[in-house]
Amino acid sequence: MTLNNKGSEIKGLTDEIIDTGCKGCILDGVLIEDTYAEAFDAYVTSIVITAVTRNLAETAAISATGYATSVAGGGAEAGIDYHITPQQSPDGRPAVSIMMVHPNKKHLQEQVIERLAECVLTAPTVRVFNGLPNATEKIKTTLHYFGDGFEYQTKIRDRDVWGIPCMGGDFFIEKEIGVVKGIAGGNFYIMGVTQMTALTAALAAVEAVWEIHGAICSYPAGVVACDLKFGSLKYDFMKMTTNHLFCPTLRDKIPDSLVPEGVRAMYEIVIDGTSYDNVKKAMHDGIHATCSINGITKISAGHFGGKLGSHKFYLRDIV
Amino acid sequence: MTLNNKGSEIKGLTDEIIDTGCKGCILDGVLIEDTYAEAFDAYVTSIVITAVTRNLAETAAISATGYATSVAGGGAEAGIDYHITPQQSPDGRPAVSIMMVHPNKKHLQEQVIERLAECVLTAPTVRVFNGLPNATEKIKTTLHYFGDGFEYQTKIRDRDVWGIPCMGGDFFIEKEIGVVKGIAGGNFYIMGVTQMTALTAALAAVEAVWEIHGAICSYPAGVVACDLKFGSLKYDFMKMTTNHLFCPTLRDKIPDSLVPEGVRAMYEIVIDGTSYDNVKKAMHDGIHATCSINGITKISAGHFGGKLGSHKFYLRDIV
Amino acid sequence: MTLNNKGSEIKGLTDEIIDTGCKGCILDGVLIEDTYAEAFDAYVTSIVITAVTRNLAETAAISATGYATSVAGGGAEAGIDYHITPQQSPDGRPAVSIMMVHPNKKHLQEQVIERLAECVLTAPTVRVFNGLPNATEKIKTTLHYFGDGFEYQTKIRDRDVWGIPCMGGDFFIEKEIGVVKGIAGGNFYIMGVTQMTALTAALAAVEAVWEIHGAICSYPAGVVACDLKFGSLKYDFMKMTTNHLFCPTLRDKIPDSLVPEGVRAMYEIVIDGTSYDNVKKAMHDGIHATCSINGITKISAGHFGGKLGSHKFYLRDIV
Amino acid sequence: MTLNNKGSEIKGLTDEIIDTGCKGCILDGVLIEDTYAEAFDAYVTSIVITAVTRNLAETAAISATGYATSVAGGGAEAGIDYHITPQQSPDGRPAVSIMMVHPNKKHLQEQVIERLAECVLTAPTVRVFNGLPNATEKIKTTLHYFGDGFEYQTKIRDRDVWGIPCMGGDFFIEKEIGVVKGIAGGNFYIMGVTQMTALTAALAAVEAVWEIHGAICSYPAGVVACDLKFGSLKYDFMKMTTNHLFCPTLRDKIPDSLVPEGVRAMYEIVIDGTSYDNVKKAMHDGIHATCSINGITKISAGHFGGKLGSHKFYLRDIV
Repeated sequence: MTLNNKGSEIKGLTDEIIDTGCKGCILDGVLIEDTYAEAFDAYVTSIVITAVTRNLAETAAISATGYATSVAGGGAEAGIDYHITPQQSPDGRPAVSIMMVHPNKKHLQEQVIERLAECVLTAPTVRVFNGLPNATEKIKTTLHYFGDGFEYQTKIRDRDVWGIPCMGGDFFIEKEIGVVKGIAGGNFYIMGVTQMTALTAALAAVEAVWEIHGAICSYPAGVVACDLKFGSLKYDFMKMTTNHLFCPTLRDKIPDSLVPEGVRAMYEIVIDGTSYDNVKKAMHDGIHATCSINGITKISAGHFGGKLGSHKFYLRDIV
Repeated sequence: MTLNNKGSEIKGLTDEIIDTGCKGCILDGVLIEDTYAEAFDAYVTSIVITAVTRNLAETAAISATGYATSVAGGGAEAGIDYHITPQQSPDGRPAVSIMMVHPNKKHLQEQVIERLAECVLTAPTVRVFNGLPNATEKIKTTLHYFGDGFEYQTKIRDRDVWGIPCMGGDFFIEKEIGVVKGIAGGNFYIMGVTQMTALTAALAAVEAVWEIHGAICSYPAGVVACDLKFGSLKYDFMKMTTNHLFCPTLRDKIPDSLVPEGVRAMYEIVIDGTSYDNVKKAMHDGIHATCSINGITKISAGHFGGKLGSHKFYLRDIV
Repeated sequence: MTLNNKGSEIKGLTDEIIDTGCKGCILDGVLIEDTYAEAFDAYVTSIVITAVTRNLAETAAISATGYATSVAGGGAEAGIDYHITPQQSPDGRPAVSIMMVHPNKKHLQEQVIERLAECVLTAPTVRVFNGLPNATEKIKTTLHYFGDGFEYQTKIRDRDVWGIPCMGGDFFIEKEIGVVKGIAGGNFYIMGVTQMTALTAALAAVEAVWEIHGAICSYPAGVVACDLKFGSLKYDFMKMTTNHLFCPTLRDKIPDSLVPEGVRAMYEIVIDGTSYDNVKKAMHDGIHATCSINGITKISAGHFGGKLGSHKFYLRDIV
Repeated sequence: MTLNNKGSEIKGLTDEIIDTGCKGCILDGVLIEDTYAEAFDAYVTSIVITAVTRNLAETAAISATGYATSVAGGGAEAGIDYHITPQQSPDGRPAVSIMMVHPNKKHLQEQVIERLAECVLTAPTVRVFNGLPNATEKIKTTLHYFGDGFEYQTKIRDRDVWGIPCMGGDFFIEKEIGVVKGIAGGNFYIMGVTQMTALTAALAAVEAVWEIHGAICSYPAGVVACDLKFGSLKYDFMKMTTNHLFCPTLRDKIPDSLVPEGVRAMYEIVIDGTSYDNVKKAMHDGIHATCSINGITKISAGHFGGKLGSHKFYLRDIV
C-alpha cells in the first residue's frame, strides 16, 4: 500500500489483485487484464442540432436519442456526442452533436428520419445540420415533405437547407446528412471494492469519453449495469439473459464465477464511434479516468471469440 | 395599455385582440378563445424508478421515455410525471415517476417491457415500482426472465418484487404495474407577439403542468413547435403535414390563414393524463402560467370535429 | 456478512466495527456511535424568490446564498431550502425558498439586505417574498430606497410589496421578512470504506435533508470535506486548523487518531434549521439515507463540551 | 419587413428604429448605437478547480464565486470562466476555471484566500491550481497553514502543491496563483419589444460570452436587470439608485426618459476579462448572439464620461 500523489486516495485493497493469476499490466495501481474488446462494423451518422439556447438544443437531442441503448433491441444506438459553441456552430447558435448507429444503412436512415420527425421537427427553435460534411456517403433527410408544398430551398451560411413553415417558426434542415462506416461495441469493464466506488469510476470514465468527438456511450448515464450473455441456461424463449458469471451476488453460489475476490460491483462502458481510432482513444481516456478513482481493483473487456465482430481492441495496446 | 400589478409586465399589444371577432373571455389580459380541446381514450401506466441519487433515477427515466412524443409515430407517448422524495418513495431512495400512454393495452405492455429492459434494467442502481398501486388492471413486468433462473422473489417494504442478479448489483422490479383508462391529447395553443415571448410562456406552462401528478407533456421540453394536420394538400404519401393555416410566416401568403394579426409564433401544449380531471387541472394551471407572461395575445385549443376522440375540454370551463 | 433486501448492496466489511469498543446501536448494518451533536442558537430567516421560470429563481437564489458556508468566516450561513410550485407560490410563479442564518440579528439583517441588493435586485424577472409570514419578529427590507422616489407601494395577492422601477421591469419586494430563533450546527459524521462510498452516502444524506422544509446544509454540495478544530498545535495565528485526529491519511502516523480501522474517508453534514425539531428531523432522514449505501461503517457526531452551544442532539434518540 | 434566412424569425418591428435619430449601424436588423462602453483597470486572477466529477468541481466553483456581482458592494467580482476537459486539466480530472476580479491587488488576494478557505477547502474531492501559469505576478495561497504542521509539499504532474490532510482526504493546492492587470466593466445594453424577448437575447449573449476563455459575466445568470446610477435624486444616504432614465415603466411619466418607443425591457451584460482583447471579443460575440434573436430593436452601451475608467470599447469597432 503506497500513498501516491493523490494523497487520501489510498491505493489500498489492491495488493491481492496481482495474485489472481491474471496476466496483465498495472495502471495507477489497477490491474489491466490482458484481454481485448470485440467490436463490430456499423454505419454511423452525426447530426448537429442548433437552437436559441444550448438547453433547448440539448432537450431535443436527448429526446431524439432516447430509447436507443442497443441495436439488439431492434432500434438504433444513439447518444449525445459533444457540444458546439455558438462561435463554431453552423448557424451561430449553441449546438449539440448527436450520433446514431446501426449496422444496416437503410435501417439507420429510417431511424434518423423517424427520430428527427418525431423529436426534432416538433421541438422549439431547433435546426438540423450535417455533422459529417466530409463524408462521401449521404442519407437524404426527407422531412421537407412535411412542408406540404410550402417548403422552400435556401442557404444558411454555407449549408443547403430546406425551410419548412411551422407554427412556432420556420424549421430548417440540411438536405443531406453524412454517413461513415464506424464501429460499435468498444467496451471495458470496471470492478470495484464497493458499488459506489465502481459506479463513480464508471461515471468518471463516461465524462472523459464525452470529450472525445466521434465517440458515444449509448446507455443511460453511459454506464451498463446489467451485462447480458447470448442465450439462456433455462429459458429457451430468451435471446439474452444476465451474464451470471459476472454477478457479484452469485460469486459464492456458483462454481465458475468470474468475479474476483473483494469485488462488490462491476460496470461496463460501451463505446460506439465514427472510426477505430476514435473508439480506441475513448477507451484510453475512459480507462485512465477510471483508474484515478481509489478502490478500483481491475479493468477487463468483453469479447465473444469473433462471433460479434471483427475488430479487436487489446487493452495492453490502449493503456 | 394598463400597468397592472406585474409592473413592468405591461399588458400591451393586446388591445387589437378584442377586435378579431372571436368570442371568448379575457384572462389576465389574454383572449381565451371560445373553443375546446378534443382528446381521446388511452391506457396509461405509471412507473416509479428509484436510485441511489435522484440524478441517476432521472437519467434512467429520461432514457426510458425518450423517442416517445406521439402515438401517431407508432410507439408510445411517455414522459416524466413527477419527483418523489426519499421520504415518500417505495424504498426510501429518491425517485422519479414516469408515465407511458397508448390507446392499445397490449401495445402499451410491449412498450413498457421493452423500454424497461433496454433503458432501466441496464441503468446503475435503479429499481422499478408500481406507480398506480390502487389500479385494478395490471400488466406483468416479465423482466425477471433475464435472471436466467437465478432470479428470486422477495419484498422491499410492502412491495412484492423480483430480484435479478446483475453485474452492478441485484436489480429489483415490482411484479405488476397498474394500468388505468386515462386520456391523451388534451391541448391548448399559445400565440405571442414574438417567438421568444410565446416560447417562454409555453415553457412556463410546462413548468406548471409538471407539478400536476398524473399529467405529462410528452414532447421535447413539453412544447410542440410544429402543428401537423392529417393528410396533405400535395403529397399523397404523407399521412400528416404542417398545419399551414397556423404558420405565421405564411400568414400574408395564403388567403385562409388563421394566424391573428401581430402573432409571430404559436406553440401547443399537449397533455396526457391518468384521468379527465387531471388533464383538466393541468390545462387550467398551464393556461394560467402562460397568461402571466406579457406579450401573449391569445389562447386557443385544437379539435377535429370528433374524429380524434370523444373527450372535450372547453376553455371557458377551464380558466 | 448477510445478503439483505438491498441485494447487491452487500452489508459486508462491517463485522469488525462492533469490535471497536464504541457503544452504540446498529442501523441497517451501520454502527451509530452513542454520542451527540452540539448546536447553537441563531437567528434564521426564510426568503422566497419567484421568477418567470424556476431556473431563473434558482440562479438568483444560488448567487444570493453563495460564499456563505460558515459564520466563523464572518458572513452568514445560507443555502437553498426548498422549491415551491407555481401553484403554491405567493405570486403564481415558480419559486425557491432560501434560508440565511446568523447568531446576531443585526448582522443577519445586514447580510439579508446586502445579498438581496447585490444578487436579487439585479437578477432578471425575480421578486422577493417573506418566507416566514407567521413569525412575530421581522426585519425590514429597505431595498425600496433604490427606487429613488419612483418606488411605490402595492399588493401582489395578499402581500404588501414595494415596486421599484428597473431597467428590466419593475422589481417587487415584500416590505418585511420574518425572523425566528432557530438552530445552527446540527451535524453528523459519515465514515466509509472508500472515499467514493463515503461521498455518495454524504450526497444521499443531503438529498434527504433538502426535502425537509426549514433545514439547510450551507456547505458546497451540502458536504464538509475538511473538519476544522479550534486553534492550532503549531500556528498561533490560525483560529482554526484541520482536525488531525479525523484525517484518514494521518491514521498510521499519529498515536491518538480517532479514525477507525478500515475507514478511508469521512464527511460531515452540517444542518441549520428554523427549529430544534426541523434540525432533528433532517438529521434523522439524512442518517437513514446515508445508511442505505453499502460500505458505510460508522456514523458519529461532533460536540465541543458545551463551548459551542447549548443544544444537544443525541444520535440514539434520533435514529 | 423582410424574411431573412432565419425564416420565422421575422425581423419586424424594427422599421421605426432607423427613425429614432440615433446614429449607428445596423447588425442583423438591429440598430447598434454609435456609443462606447467605459471600463476600468482591475486585477484579475484565474483559478482552476478540479474534482472527481465535473459536477463537484462546478458546485465548489459556484459557491466560491457566489455573492460577488459587483466590487461596488465591497467584495470581489467573480464567476465561472470556462470548463476544462479531464484530458486538458492539470491533474487529469474534470475542471472548472473561475475568475476573481478587484481593482486592489491586496483586496483581491484576501478575497481569494477567504473564498478558497470557506468554499473550496471544505468541498469534497476538489483541488486548486493556478489558472494563469504564465502570469509574472503571483499571489501566495496560504491555505497550507490549515494543515497545522501536517501539511507537506509535493508535485502533481508539473505543479508544485501543498498537501493538507483533511477528513475527506488530502486537499491539494498550488502554492502560487497568477494575477494579471485586466479590465472590469465592459458592457452593452439590450433593448427588446417584450421582456421575454430581451431576456432571451440577454441569455443568448451570456452563452456566447461563456465560450470566451478569459471573460466572465459576474451577475446572476450573467444578466443585469436593474441598472444603477451613481447617487440619488432624493435619498442622500444612497450611493447608487435605479437609473430612472432607463426604466420602461417610467417612460411615459418622466420627460427625459431614454427608453426608445416600443421597448418594454432592457438588460445589460457586464463583462470582466483578463485583457482588453478578451473583453472586446466577448462583447463582439455577445452582441452577435443577441442580434440573432427577433424582437431586439437596439444595442447600446454605458459610459460615465471617463469617471469610471479609462478604457473605451466603441460598438462600431466591435460589431
